[in-house]
Amino acid sequence: MNYSIIRYILCWVLEFQALFLALPCIVAVCYGEKQGWMFLFVAVGCFAVGALGRLKKAKSDVFYAREGFVTVSLSWIIMSLTGALPFFLTGEFDTYTDALFETISGFTTTGASILSDVEALSRCTMFWRCFTHWIGGMGVLVLILAVLPLAGGYNMYLMRAESPGPTVGKLVPRVRHTARILYEMYVLMTIVEIITLLLAGMPLYDSITLSFGTAGTGGFGLLNTGAAEYTATVQIILTVFMILFGINFNVYFLIRERKGLAALKHEEMRYYLGVIAVAILLITVNVREFFTTIGETVRHVAFQVASIITTTGFSTTDFNKWPEFSKFILVILMFVGACAGSTGGGIKISRVMIMAKLAKNEFSHLIHPKRVRQISLEKHVVTKETLRSISVFFIAYTFIYAASVLLISLDNLDFTTNFTAVAATLNNIGPGLGMVGPTSNFSVYSDPAKYVLMFDMLAGRLELFPMLLLFAPSTWKRN
Amino acid sequence: MNYSIIRYILCWVLEFQALFLALPCIVAVCYGEKQGWMFLFVAVGCFAVGALGRLKKAKSDVFYAREGFVTVSLSWIIMSLTGALPFFLTGEFDTYTDALFETISGFTTTGASILSDVEALSRCTMFWRCFTHWIGGMGVLVLILAVLPLAGGYNMYLMRAESPGPTVGKLVPRVRHTARILYEMYVLMTIVEIITLLLAGMPLYDSITLSFGTAGTGGFGLLNTGAAEYTATVQIILTVFMILFGINFNVYFLIRERKGLAALKHEEMRYYLGVIAVAILLITVNVREFFTTIGETVRHVAFQVASIITTTGFSTTDFNKWPEFSKFILVILMFVGACAGSTGGGIKISRVMIMAKLAKNEFSHLIHPKRVRQISLEKHVVTKETLRSISVFFIAYTFIYAASVLLISLDNLDFTTNFTAVAATLNNIGPGLGMVGPTSNFSVYSDPAKYVLMFDMLAGRLELFPMLLLFAPSTWKRN
Repeated sequence: MNYSIIRYILCWVLEFQALFLALPCIVAVCYGEKQGWMFLFVAVGCFAVGALGRLKKAKSDVFYAREGFVTVSLSWIIMSLTGALPFFLTGEFDTYTDALFETISGFTTTGASILSDVEALSRCTMFWRCFTHWIGGMGVLVLILAVLPLAGGYNMYLMRAESPGPTVGKLVPRVRHTARILYEMYVLMTIVEIITLLLAGMPLYDSITLSFGTAGTGGFGLLNTGAAEYTATVQIILTVFMILFGINFNVYFLIRERKGLAALKHEEMRYYLGVIAVAILLITVNVREFFTTIGETVRHVAFQVASIITTTGFSTTDFNKWPEFSKFILVILMFVGACAGSTGGGIKISRVMIMAKLAKNEFSHLIHPKRVRQISLEKHVVTKETLRSISVFFIAYTFIYAASVLLISLDNLDFTTNFTAVAATLNNIGPGLGMVGPTSNFSVYSDPAKYVLMFDMLAGRLELFPMLLLFAPSTWKRN
Repeated sequence: MNYSIIRYILCWVLEFQALFLALPCIVAVCYGEKQGWMFLFVAVGCFAVGALGRLKKAKSDVFYAREGFVTVSLSWIIMSLTGALPFFLTGEFDTYTDALFETISGFTTTGASILSDVEALSRCTMFWRCFTHWIGGMGVLVLILAVLPLAGGYNMYLMRAESPGPTVGKLVPRVRHTARILYEMYVLMTIVEIITLLLAGMPLYDSITLSFGTAGTGGFGLLNTGAAEYTATVQIILTVFMILFGINFNVYFLIRERKGLAALKHEEMRYYLGVIAVAILLITVNVREFFTTIGETVRHVAFQVASIITTTGFSTTDFNKWPEFSKFILVILMFVGACAGSTGGGIKISRVMIMAKLAKNEFSHLIHPKRVRQISLEKHVVTKETLRSISVFFIAYTFIYAASVLLISLDNLDFTTNFTAVAATLNNIGPGLGMVGPTSNFSVYSDPAKYVLMFDMLAGRLELFPMLLLFAPSTWKRN
């Protein structure tokens, strides 16, 4: 293990964190809030520590997958630990544990909250809370790769460890250019959403913060009632943008390259939109009687489906009161998740697709043992390496899932609450069902249970392996 | 597809069914019950149809995996359809659907019941209900292979399709001898249990029927209160025999061959006993306050753990009232299940072991990409074929699981009930939690939901593939 290079990159992460924290300071100045001093204080601290740590260059450039995984997971932990400090120092969160839970929930774009009264927060704190979603959506290391002239072979390892999906598609041959293009598209789409919301009559502050939550598929909102009080127009705009941010960014790259037809033929996107359409149809039929008009029904159902499958977690209505059939469709969508290469969480559409193809292949193999078929996605053959990695992902996912539910069961809350609390955190969604439903929050859990759920949020966002490797002794061996 | 050979074997299955049905007739004679006529009537019918169908020999001996899967799944369906007839004809079940549910639950050794008053059944009906467990435990086709001089290459295909576990270990080179040895050990162990229960003061009828339920790891009992009214001695005897019947029968074969040391070193058995010990320890600590003495606590906990992990489903206490932590351990055990090559259900210890090893391997591969390690079980390398088949099993299992919960959710019962109802049927256990807990029964579900659960029981017992292949159009193509 090359410790010096990890230290060096982590110091850069602290520098960027200082930069991020400057934004809520500006918000505090605009609104004349004294809480801004705490953000400034932490920002200066991060900058100082980062700058000091960077004075000594890395001894060696040796960098492999192992270093990549560890750097990424430690970066996220450091971002969370420092990002939680202002929440705690302003006194707006009772304990550091709660502040940390909220911050991890923010960076991992989960959107699960400890707060019962969001509206009581200061403007700068609320801004930071939503901004963490935006940073976490595309990832801080991808940003560092895009901005800094870091040379060396480790770019790909960092990118691979932070980006969601079974394989990482480099859009262009160089990793740095790929990272830059991703952020360009991300920024552009966020700006378009902000403008659209402004046009719909929303104030600037609300448009910006809400767009952060949508872009990162996070789910932190500004009101205690979630998105229920917004106009129908705003709800429709949010629905559309949630779905857009759940699409594989390769599709937008194709559009950017003026390959519109290829974009339309993107296999994962088509399945993703198909699943959304079927879910909306089934739930609409099932909950028709809950709303007065068919238009209202479709609007609420489409919002909830988009919110859950993209793992955003906004809500316009308390779907905890819906019939079991509709609720279970939402539970399935929680696991399926959005497209790989998007800002959404969950198992990812392409993984589910490959698993379904694998199962289908095995059946045909049982009937005709001599026929050998390869599995392909987006017209490329899926390698054996990827297939094995997906199987292991699924196995590890199930093991972590069971262990997490077991541990939080010690709090003795009911099975539905425990089962969906883990579903909502490991898949980075936000609300679950039962006592962690859309109108409740995660303060019902004890501190130890909260730490389990924090681990799940980080493991979910980084797709298990980086966080799990932290616990393998052989990861830490010097050579 | 070679239809004529399938027809021929299915006719033999009907002949054996007639033989099985003769036993409750004898019981009816002993107790002077007129319900016996119905059993005789169905037995004669099965015999006649089977004999007529066998008049025309099979045209060809061509027999592959495909024919094996179809023969096995159709055999189980025919056994269930005919086995349910006497239940319905005696009038002891209200509808044929309920009778069929109870029969499938019996043959698949699930033990999930529709009845609220078991004690109202006639002696012969109760005998048949428990006897189905015993037949289903080792399997009817394994019995046919053991008894009939069926020549041809199809023995192995039938054995593989009916026996549980990721691979089928032939104990001796010839399949027919393997089947015979398996049944010898099965009969012997059942007789030992019957004698032990007799020595503990239980009447003969009760000893026999209860032993059928234990041997097949089924779970149908004789009393409305399950096993709660039995003496501590009887409960301990049942605990021991449940655990014994959940062990891979290869272990008993090794003992039979006087290879005691090798038997003790059996990897799957050691993990199985280890999991049982850990589960008993954790739950005992958690539910200590529910019982007066520590001895009583351990006895009840050990009984429930043995009952659930072996997927038997007997109960001495209402574990639905236990704390969530203990309940969730039981839920995990429901999925883990017993050893491969035993009469128990679930995913099987060896599959879980191989999946854990696969995940561990992948982690070490991530850290040291150049190191390639093979996975072995019982000192044999697990082939890539088996690894892929286990992954696909797990994927198919999850898909069937989600689809089943979704479908039965239409009845609008709560999530805990639906989730554990599928767990209890797909893993062939019997009781779940909530409204299908140990003191309740499955009559809460509508008929369509019951058919979904019946499919799950059959799919679980035959380990998914045979039942799923029935729905693949290419299975039925002539060539």
